[in-house]
This record gives sequence, C-alpha cells and structure tokens, in this order.
Amino acid sequence: MTSALRVLPLGGLGEIGKNMTVLEYEDRIVLVDAGLRFPTPEMMGIDLVLPDFAYLRGRVSDIEAIVITHGHEDHLGCLPFLLRELGVHDAPPVYGGALTMAMARSKLDEHKLSKDVEVIDVKDGEMIEAGPFDVELIHMTHSIPDASAVALTTDLGTVLVTGDYKFDQTPVDGRPADVTRLAELGREGLLLLCGDSTNADRPGMAPSETIAGPNLLDVFSRCKGRIVVTSFASNIHRVQQVVDAAAALDRKVCLVGRSMKKNTNIGRSLGHIKVPEGMLIGPRDVAKFPDEKVVVISTGSQGEPLSALRRMAYKDHPQVELHAGDTVVFSATPIPGNERAVNETIDRLYHIGCDVITTKDAPIHASGHGYREEIKLMLNLTKPRYVMPFHGDFKRIHLHGKLAESVGVAPENIFKGENGLPLQIDAKGARFAKKEQSGMIFVDGVDIGDVTDVALRDRRMLSADGIFVVVATISENDGSSVGEPEVMFRGVPFVDEADKVRDQLRASVERTLDRAAKDEIREIDLLQQMLHDDLAAFVYDKLKRRPMVLPVVVEV
Amino acid sequence: MTSALRVLPLGGLGEIGKNMTVLEYEDRIVLVDAGLRFPTPEMMGIDLVLPDFAYLRGRVSDIEAIVITHGHEDHLGCLPFLLRELGVHDAPPVYGGALTMAMARSKLDEHKLSKDVEVIDVKDGEMIEAGPFDVELIHMTHSIPDASAVALTTDLGTVLVTGDYKFDQTPVDGRPADVTRLAELGREGLLLLCGDSTNADRPGMAPSETIAGPNLLDVFSRCKGRIVVTSFASNIHRVQQVVDAAAALDRKVCLVGRSMKKNTNIGRSLGHIKVPEGMLIGPRDVAKFPDEKVVVISTGSQGEPLSALRRMAYKDHPQVELHAGDTVVFSATPIPGNERAVNETIDRLYHIGCDVITTKDAPIHASGHGYREEIKLMLNLTKPRYVMPFHGDFKRIHLHGKLAESVGVAPENIFKGENGLPLQIDAKGARFAKKEQSGMIFVDGVDIGDVTDVALRDRRMLSADGIFVVVATISENDGSSVGEPEVMFRGVPFVDEADKVRDQLRASVERTLDRAAKDEIREIDLLQQMLHDDLAAFVYDKLKRRPMVLPVVVEV
Repeated sequence: MTSALRVLPLGGLGEIGKNMTVLEYEDRIVLVDAGLRFPTPEMMGIDLVLPDFAYLRGRVSDIEAIVITHGHEDHLGCLPFLLRELGVHDAPPVYGGALTMAMARSKLDEHKLSKDVEVIDVKDGEMIEAGPFDVELIHMTHSIPDASAVALTTDLGTVLVTGDYKFDQTPVDGRPADVTRLAELGREGLLLLCGDSTNADRPGMAPSETIAGPNLLDVFSRCKGRIVVTSFASNIHRVQQVVDAAAALDRKVCLVGRSMKKNTNIGRSLGHIKVPEGMLIGPRDVAKFPDEKVVVISTGSQGEPLSALRRMAYKDHPQVELHAGDTVVFSATPIPGNERAVNETIDRLYHIGCDVITTKDAPIHASGHGYREEIKLMLNLTKPRYVMPFHGDFKRIHLHGKLAESVGVAPENIFKGENGLPLQIDAKGARFAKKEQSGMIFVDGVDIGDVTDVALRDRRMLSADGIFVVVATISENDGSSVGEPEVMFRGVPFVDEADKVRDQLRASVERTLDRAAKDEIREIDLLQQMLHDDLAAFVYDKLKRRPMVLPVVVEV
Repeated sequence: MTSALRVLPLGGLGEIGKNMTVLEYEDRIVLVDAGLRFPTPEMMGIDLVLPDFAYLRGRVSDIEAIVITHGHEDHLGCLPFLLRELGVHDAPPVYGGALTMAMARSKLDEHKLSKDVEVIDVKDGEMIEAGPFDVELIHMTHSIPDASAVALTTDLGTVLVTGDYKFDQTPVDGRPADVTRLAELGREGLLLLCGDSTNADRPGMAPSETIAGPNLLDVFSRCKGRIVVTSFASNIHRVQQVVDAAAALDRKVCLVGRSMKKNTNIGRSLGHIKVPEGMLIGPRDVAKFPDEKVVVISTGSQGEPLSALRRMAYKDHPQVELHAGDTVVFSATPIPGNERAVNETIDRLYHIGCDVITTKDAPIHASGHGYREEIKLMLNLTKPRYVMPFHGDFKRIHLHGKLAESVGVAPENIFKGENGLPLQIDAKGARFAKKEQSGMIFVDGVDIGDVTDVALRDRRMLSADGIFVVVATISENDGSSVGEPEVMFRGVPFVDEADKVRDQLRASVERTLDRAAKDEIREIDLLQQMLHDDLAAFVYDKLKRRPMVLPVVVEV
C-alpha cells in the first residue's frame, strides 16, 4: 500500500475521445468517466474503440465508485463494456447527474446489465463517500445538460477533474457553471487540476449556447420550403431551440434518426425539452403537410454513413425524400476527421437542388468547450498547485500547459502526460511514475478484445490488393500433384487478365510441387511456405501488386 | 457531322480533380487538360483515379491538339495514361506554357513515352491552328508559374476555359494575369466561359502570393532552432520565397522529398528559382550545421503517408531526425479530405516537442484560386453569352452560377453541368445534349482499367471482416467427405475464440457434406454454394460478423 495519490489517465490524452481516469489512494479506486472513441478508417471494420482497462482487471472490488461527468459517448460510452468485462456482480455504483444517469441506464439496458448495476443520480453539492475519497459533483455548462466537474478530496488535498466544460454565462436552462464553488475550492487551495484542453487553440471565449436560437429563427424565417436541421442528438438545448424557432413560425416538427428520437425522449421525460401539444409529427406525415409548414430535425451532422441525413442526401431514406427548394441547416461543425464525409453529404444535397446553410453562413452553432480565456479563468478560479491538462491531443495539451504558465503556474508543476502515465502525488510533491499498460481495445461485431495487429494488418493487405487462394492436392504416397491445382481470387481487379494469369499460376504451382517432390519435401507447412513464396513472387512480377497468397495443400 | 460546337467535360464537375474537357466542332477535337484525382479511402488500394476517356477511344486521329493549362496533377497527371491508351503513334501534339511542358516531358519520360509525343512550348499570344479551332493561351496567375487560360475560337465564336486562376496583382514573378487580352475577348463578345469554381464560396479576393514571403521571414526570425517548411512542391514561387527568407537569415537550405527536388530542379533550369551559390545542402549534411543555420524544405504538407514530413514526424526518416526545439512551418492549408492526416502529423510533431506554425498562426499561405470577387471580375471582363461553371463540386458550381446571375448573366444562359453532359451550341443557342459515357478509371499497380465494382466490393468486405477459406475434400466415387476439412482465416480477430470456432466450423462443413451426400448432390458448384450459405450463416450466428466465405471442394 502506497500513501501516494495516483492519477492515471487510461484514455483522452494524446487523442480526442475515450476519456477515462483512475484515481487511486490507499489502494482504493474512483474511476472518473468511461468513454469510447469512434474508429478511424485505418481500423478496418472495427466498430468502436475502448480504453485498455487491463489496469483494472481483477480489481473490481477495489473500485469504490464510477463517476460520469456527462452523457457524451466519449465519457460514458464504454461503461457497459467495462462493467461486463470487470464482472457485474461486484460492480461499483455509478454516479452522475440526472440526465447522465438516465443515459447510462439506457445504455446498460441495451446491454442487459441494468439489473446488476446500481446507477445513482447525484445532486450538486451532495457528497459521495467513496473509501478514502470524498467526491462532489460541481455543476458546469457544456453542450449537454447536467454536465459536472468532479472534485475528489483525500487527506492530501483536492483533485478537480473538470470534464468537458465552458463558462456559458447565459445557458439555455438558466443554470451557469457553479463558479462560486470553484472559487471556494481555489481559496482552500486545489492540489491538482485536470482540465479540458479541447479548445486550447481558440482565442477568446466560446459563444453562449443561447446565440443559436435567434440565429436559427432568423435563418428559418428566410426559408420558403421545408427545413431540415441537423445537430448532435445529445445537444438537448439545441433541439429545444430548434423546436422554439419552428413554433414561432408555426411549423410542425418531425424527429428523424434513432438517437435523435431516443435523446429527445429522455430530455422530455426529465423536463429539459418542452414541445407544444400536437406539434410533433411522424416521418410518414411529413409529406402530408405543405413544405413551408415542416421542420425535420435529423441525425447526421457528421456525415455518418448510416445516419438519416446521409441517407436523405443519397435519396435512400425510407420516409423523407428531399427535393429542390428544401433547406438543410447544419447546426454543428464537423469534428476533426469528419470533414470529408460532411462535405460529401453537403454536395449531394446541392446536387438534389437543396439550399445548405452551415455555421459559415450564420452563427447557428456554439462549441461546448471553453476557449483559451475560459481555460485561464478555470485556472485562476481554482488556483491549483499542480496542473495536468486532460482531454486533448498532444498539441492541445501543450497549448493548455502554455496557458497555465501564462497565469503563473510554475513550469515544473505542469505535467504534460499521456495515456498510461500515472501522476503520483505525496507530501513531497508530484512526479510521473512508471508507465502502466494502456492503449486501445476494439469492439468488432459482438466481441471485444485485443484485435491483434495481425488481423488488422491482414485486413489492410486484403483491402489494398485482395487475396489469391491456391489449393494443391498431392498424393500421400509420393507427394506428386493430383489433378489440377485450384486458383481462386477475391478483390483482384482486371479479371480478364487474371484469367490468363490463373493458368500461369496453375503452371507455377505445378512447377513448385514438382520441385518439392524432387527434393522430397513432404512436410505440409514447408510445402505451403514454398508455394506461398513462389506464388507471391510470381504474382508481384505479373501484376505488380502484393495480394495475400493463401496456399492450401491437401494430401490424399 | 454536326455543325454544333460541343463542350464535353469528362472530369472536374461535381468533384475537385481530374479536369479534362473535350471541345468538338465539325468532328474535330481539341482536348483541354488531362488531369487525375487521388483516391478516397473507400477506393481500397487504388493508386490513382483518371477520367473515363471512352468517348475518345478510336478517335485519336480526330484530336487536333491537347492543351494543358498548367502543371498540376489534376490538369496534367492523366496525360501519359491517356496517350498510352489512345495509342501514341498517332498521338496529337501537346501544347502549353514552358514550365507546364517541362513537367509534361518529365511525366512522359517516366512512362517512356517522350520519344513518341510532340510536346510544344507555347508563348502567350501565339496562335495554334488546330483544325477548325484557333487556340490561344492567355497568361494567368495561379500557385504555379506559367498557368494559362485557353481561348478556342471557331466560326461560332470563342470559348474560354480559364483553367485554375487568381487575379494576383503583385505576383512573385511580376507577371500579372493578362487582363488586357481578357478584356479584348469580352469586347469581341465571348460565346462561352468555362471558369474555375474552386473558391466560389469565399468572399473577397485571394491574397497575393507575395504576402507569404515577408510573413515567412517574420516567422523564421523568431525561430531559435531548425526550421522545417512544408508546402506544395509545385509551388515554385513559394519555394523561392522560403529560399529568400532563409538567405536573409543566413541559413542553409535542404530540399527533402522526391517531388520537391524534382520540381525545384525544373524550376531552376527554367529560371523560376534562384538559389545563391553554396546555399543548398544535402539531407545528410543537415546534422553538420548548427540548428539555427538550417531550413529544411519538405514535401508532406497534406500529411501524405509516405511523404518526407510524415516520416520525420513518425521518427522514420532515414536522414532528418527532428527533435525538441525544431519549428515546423505549414505553408499550405489542407485540401478538403486531408484534414485528419495533417492533424495527425502535427500532433506527432508536438509529441516530439517541435513547435508547429500553421496558416492559423500567420498569413504564410495564399490560395491559388480566385475568390468570389475575382470570379465576378472574370465574368465582367469577358462578358460571356453563356456560362458553364467548371472545376468544382456541385456546391461550388451552384455558387458560381449565382455569381454569374449577380453580374447580370440571364439564368437560362447559365449551364450547371456534370461530367459526361455535353453542352451543345449552334446558331440557335445552347443546350445540354444526351449524356455521354463518363466516370472513373482506376490505376491499380501497373494496370489501368475499369476496376470492377465486384473487386472493390470484395476488398471492402475483406477489409471489414476478413475471410474464411474452407477446403473440403470429397470422394469422386460417392461424394463422401475424405479426411478433415481445412479451415483457414485471415483478418478475423480474436484468434483464440476463432480456434474454437474452427472446430465448430469443421463440424458444420461435415454436416453440410453429409446432407449433400444424402441428397446426392455432386455438382461442385452447387456443393460450394451450399457450403458457402451454411457457413456464412454459421459464422454470422457465432461471430455476428460477415467475413467473406470461400469454399473450395476438391474431388479425389
């Protein structure tokens, strides 16, 4: 047992996504957030990316609590996978704000885990006792209601994990961030601040969420035909503002896309979204109303392949068919990496003849993450002794560090970390300790696990050049070739040419088999290796490509 | 023979890239540009994308000339492929500015075609007689020297294809666009303007290329360590400005990356780039000079996987090793779609400890394409009767059309086209005619051709879920299974589990074979179909994935 406090990020540093942090003191653990990431195109066929939680395996009974700062996938999405893997029978309780916990329950339901896990709504100011930690949620503003920072106090002092936040002075629900409590923590003296770095590269302050409403109304009022608005489904306040603008113009509202319907339902049940009676219509009813009487609110703001908007843009949506005169309003900006998918969607919309309004045309979006002045405000409010920038790629962590320096934090007290690198704090100070296992776990189909590099490398190879399969049948007696070798291929273009190549390949296989028979090579593995090497060389020579070559030798 | 003039874009409309246009009159053809595109990630393993030139097949003797507006890949890159496919023996002459033709020769050299093709430097104002067309190049400014618009005159009037252009009033080489000649064409009355739409969404005018120089010098003068600058290798004037800034600070210059060296050599041989004696050093010598005495000019501004900068960022460059204190200057913006690759590169640089300066930090880049006011200026200078926006996705073509309306072109005279849709103009007016074949040709390895949808679909399937290969050996006599079936897989993760699955798969194969034997099904194709269907269902049931299943039945 060590008397040092360990802060071990398992995700969210050097990347945007899969936020998850272990806080450990006296061998007891509180976990803050359990998020996931979406795969990049190189992660061929992978569905989701989770933090590697090897560090927690076998330690479920040491975990006092899991605290979720807010309901976004990159903070909450890994929860069911984590609990299933650690074992739900001893699962620690999960704490968070009311909306966050409603979303957590919905997720655990989908994974049939909700009966086994205690999910507890926490009010601001309420104290959670979690072993050696006193845990408190502090209300923050973000692009989803009920976002919180988490203060974790031990006898060494208080660590604040901010979660995602902005200092919205005029939030839609009238509840600004609890700067009073943050200032109190600062007066008491914060030990460590682990703060959101997402917008450490943007000067100034993020615009308030309330700017979106009047601008959406302004845009809508100039639209003559139907309006389709797309935004993040979890941005409950944005959805409310779209509903308000539609109501002001006497338009009906139709929700399209699974997550849009689900989140709006959760939002309505908790009183975050209010829709006037009779205003909501179903997708099948859209065509029954005049174009100028309809607003469709849709998923797909990131150009996601299977999203409702993408399908509409490609004329592939079962219920809503777009036509010239419709206006599509993107009330969101592309997350870095999604630009191409978003641009493709927009271009298809122009091809249909739709008008498209984006954040470049009107201020109809506000980021949920504080800009540089807000990051400095957080530092000045909480006056931390140590600073460890969280939630950002290396660039933003670096820039967050510079901001901390600019408000007077000593450079040696700023810890620019990475996933798996624990910051260890005791009475003598803070320092990075030995790196722990960290990385990515892939979800692929129903399974989660370490998708081996081999499988991904194979997929990459297959995707680039396809595969040749060669089946050679040899006699058990003398190793001589029996019948014609079979050659098949998939993902290899120029079939006409390949047909010719196929005959040549057969001949090459026969030559290899003859050579092997002559050299009395009978061991199947060795034979297959020879076939592989000869064939790969032959195919490269002929096609200047390196498809996978899979030789199968059948002995009869 | 028709007396109408046809303007048939085979690429560049509804997309950015692979610009190529057929102008046809009295069955004679002039081709303007022969460009290519780089593949998107969905085009698994494809190296390059060319326009489909089916329309030109068998018509090489009808082509009077190929005119290239400038040396960028999206206007020139397809030339060797086109000439090889059409047949070089009757190849028409290729015309363009001196630098453009030097680049064309270099390309044809690489494809061993330069002996067979006449490549002719054309001076501004010089007239090319090309059958019923009088062709004239008009000097324009762009992000590469020697860019031209092409005026093609028949007895119906003059068509102007602008190529890529901006109206840079203070270009680096002191040669602004020939507005005088454009105005003359306008006074005579232009029949049709086919103009660049790339920046139809940007208000105002593009900044002059000459703004980059002083800003680069300003950035450099604040760097204490080494400086690595990345930009487009073909942006000869930018390279010159980097060299000038380095010279002013008494730093040596090292060129890194194949295309950077090649283009700079061509630029020097034509007098576009001047480097003081003794200033250039080789990559191996970089380490021999003090950090503050070196500027490296590198390829990789778009985060290209094999580029010099990307390799440096991943600590994988054979000669140049970056370290903390180096500053990397991105004197280019990401082309839409490359944002993720560029951001990844930048983040690796931050991880090394480099400082990174981009166009967000200082005005060290200027677009080569005119903004909205320049597009309007072009319209007002040339006063075309008909307008057909070129070089842009559907969004930009739409916006270009709006700009034409805004300067007084009648909406019915604005033709928003697409690839393969010929605009036909005769004495009675202009209209779109029947669509011609158009699309993409893929270059894959050494081959070009129609990579079948099947091959790409297969690659996509292989990349997402891998492949199972099952080899069953049956007796020629009674169809009974001989020995154990072989089951192999590639690109399927969770090998441990799959090992178990493999046994189950074998059993499933045996069951299918038994059933087939019982039903006296002996036809190999049918048997393989049965195996495929049973196995695919079995694998989906077990793994909830749909890998490709390739059954091979060997009869012995």
